[in-house]
Amino acid sequence: MKRVLAADAGQYIGKEILLQGWVHRIRQLGQVSFLLLRDRSGVVQTVVETGGWDIPDDITNEAVIAIRGEVGEDKRAPGGIEVRVKEREALSVISPSLEVSPIEINKKIDLLKTNLETVLAFRPLSLRNPDIRAIFKVQAEIIWAFREFLLKEGFTEIQTPKIVATGTEGGSQLFPVQYFERQAYLAQSPQFYKQIMVGSGFERVFEVGHAYRAEEHNTARHLNEYVSLDLEMGFIESEQDVMRMETGLLKFVFEHLRSTCEAELRLYKAEIPSFKEIPQITLAEAKEILKSQYKKDLGGAKDLDPEGERLICRHISKETGEELVYITAYPTEKRPFYTMPCSDNPELTKSFDLLYKGEEITTGGQRIHEYDRLLKNMKNFGLRADDFEFYLQTFKQGMPPHGGLAIGAERITKQLLNLSNIREASLFPRDRTRISP
Amino acid sequence: MKRVLAADAGQYIGKEILLQGWVHRIRQLGQVSFLLLRDRSGVVQTVVETGGWDIPDDITNEAVIAIRGEVGEDKRAPGGIEVRVKEREALSVISPSLEVSPIEINKKIDLLKTNLETVLAFRPLSLRNPDIRAIFKVQAEIIWAFREFLLKEGFTEIQTPKIVATGTEGGSQLFPVQYFERQAYLAQSPQFYKQIMVGSGFERVFEVGHAYRAEEHNTARHLNEYVSLDLEMGFIESEQDVMRMETGLLKFVFEHLRSTCEAELRLYKAEIPSFKEIPQITLAEAKEILKSQYKKDLGGAKDLDPEGERLICRHISKETGEELVYITAYPTEKRPFYTMPCSDNPELTKSFDLLYKGEEITTGGQRIHEYDRLLKNMKNFGLRADDFEFYLQTFKQGMPPHGGLAIGAERITKQLLNLSNIREASLFPRDRTRISP
Repeated sequence: MKRVLAADAGQYIGKEILLQGWVHRIRQLGQVSFLLLRDRSGVVQTVVETGGWDIPDDITNEAVIAIRGEVGEDKRAPGGIEVRVKEREALSVISPSLEVSPIEINKKIDLLKTNLETVLAFRPLSLRNPDIRAIFKVQAEIIWAFREFLLKEGFTEIQTPKIVATGTEGGSQLFPVQYFERQAYLAQSPQFYKQIMVGSGFERVFEVGHAYRAEEHNTARHLNEYVSLDLEMGFIESEQDVMRMETGLLKFVFEHLRSTCEAELRLYKAEIPSFKEIPQITLAEAKEILKSQYKKDLGGAKDLDPEGERLICRHISKETGEELVYITAYPTEKRPFYTMPCSDNPELTKSFDLLYKGEEITTGGQRIHEYDRLLKNMKNFGLRADDFEFYLQTFKQGMPPHGGLAIGAERITKQLLNLSNIREASLFPRDRTRISP
Repeated sequence: MKRVLAADAGQYIGKEILLQGWVHRIRQLGQVSFLLLRDRSGVVQTVVETGGWDIPDDITNEAVIAIRGEVGEDKRAPGGIEVRVKEREALSVISPSLEVSPIEINKKIDLLKTNLETVLAFRPLSLRNPDIRAIFKVQAEIIWAFREFLLKEGFTEIQTPKIVATGTEGGSQLFPVQYFERQAYLAQSPQFYKQIMVGSGFERVFEVGHAYRAEEHNTARHLNEYVSLDLEMGFIESEQDVMRMETGLLKFVFEHLRSTCEAELRLYKAEIPSFKEIPQITLAEAKEILKSQYKKDLGGAKDLDPEGERLICRHISKETGEELVYITAYPTEKRPFYTMPCSDNPELTKSFDLLYKGEEITTGGQRIHEYDRLLKNMKNFGLRADDFEFYLQTFKQGMPPHGGLAIGAERITKQLLNLSNIREASLFPRDRTRISP
């Protein structure tokens, strides 16, 4: 007999089917047991009529079992159907559960009660919880939609090395790798490589890959290894072309989620933003708003702090109803050396961040494409051109104006689903102290 | 005026269009210059009528330029069209080429003449060569098709950590990472994590990600960092279910390439294999064939050597006409500790390799899902259960029979396109001595 998935059982009313999955919960009521079976498609209720026999002892929560039964309609059951099981022989254990799980798998995991540390320490088990699994269904769909949109826009997918000889932004915050007899590093971003790929004639490239930051702080919004959704595109007029691409991309991603993740979004009370355009303000304007509206004076700061990001989003939401806002025109000294300065003011750059519900999810901008200017800027930043020789090759040989951006996959998932800690949006997070599981 | 791509120019016959791209080649014939312009879509011929003026000096090979001209039909031109340019003002340089490229970009790169070392040292420039770029178009389509097929089969995409505390197969061939004050390693494969994800209820998962092997040898078929196309699936009967999945997957991938990469495949004289089933032989049978047909005695060897792989493929091709063959039933001691032994002979395993045109492109098999057996096997392999505690969690709590496989993205690209060195199939290869570009 062929296995039927829980979600498909409703197509077999009046017929006998074979189910396989995990015992999600057992409730005994006199001579009837309600056994919920969980598989990758969902949970289905089975009703075991144990007249004169008991459910075998090894059929416990989290055991993997097979069940044969007849599908019947029952309005009270989840999904409106149940699978009726008559004989003991219709139940068999495929793989037993050897002990009681230290994590509650069949209940809502309320993170206020269950410590996040415990959830992460027992990640292989907590991922079985359907509420937690839902996060990664949403994340997989975000990544799918990211790729699909860009392929339609003429982008090519690339895979670039994560073992590199030099950092993209000088030597700080790098994880050293012992590469045979040499020292290498883990890539902080695919920045140089995606620029090279634009120059190589692909013009438009994207990558879904890991990025590494050896940042010492241990916050609710940082991971030391994260999934970066990167794109880079040539033949642009300015950073506005990159922002336009991101606006279109996010519209597509959000619409895709609306149609594929309805239940998961409801579970997390996540509302899909619908927007025509994403508002833009300069960093200077943002600081002015913070000062005048919220009595928050950032002084000479070259960036917003986390509280500033939250307040600006609150302000924009109040004024325009939008949950997203681009912050533009960051100072030259706070952006990497390859960032294109504004033509009318070399103290500012053609760069942007995108804030979503109070937190940055993207950094992007136009890059310098002129060899001489790039060389000069490296010197200004105290970098040695010799260390970047392979990168500079590209710029000597006709490099089009270009720009790009990176979206943190865990960040956008966290913000969309209203998660309080970014670790919840990473299957196996790596942070200041955690490299296992 | 909006930019038109080279490949779309034919839709504008009789109209003036704006092209932007790299100067691929210039040929002057009296008062007419033929200027080939290259962009991400291909190459288009422009005809510049220089009556009384010269092509400006800064319009050289590899300069990025803009050209306005009228599209006309010309049967002699590539694609049957050419773009006719009348005035000097119709040409402008967007970004100049500052020196002559050390790599020939507009010719066929014959690797017998141009040293592979040179091609790789100047990778940012050699990738501009359309023949070389074609390899990565094909690779991107292979990866797209891998994902697309598995999504249709109910798989979920996952991203698992590459910074890990322990190796999947003990301590050898690992790259050490300095992770703050601790020592960590780069993941050799997502093996443990994909198994955990099967157990977590996703049942069927895949990942496209980097894998790292600190192998000392420097051969034409090994990379130290490569892209692994991994899948893992639960509720299988045996390794045959995994092989069936791979056979269906490869059919889909190859058919997809047939429809999307015709020109690229022709360029590399690559024939798409068409098969109904992929033949299977056991390792013992393969050794017997080598001995009887090719006088090659592998003695007590537990695996084929590279020559053995080539000869077996030659034999299978002669006998069945197929270019692919599964080798099964590898000895227990040559496979990792998590490999399921054959039920009728614990010396052999339910594992397989897939050979394609003389080289292994996949390793896979059924895994052990019983906790006790796994624990015992770890001991047999000299591993400490304590080091794998997070992995073992899954097996204590109901783990379905499962198996999976990994395809090397660069390997399958190399074999399909008849490349002689795997480095040609990696954008920026990492090998024994190379971490740049």
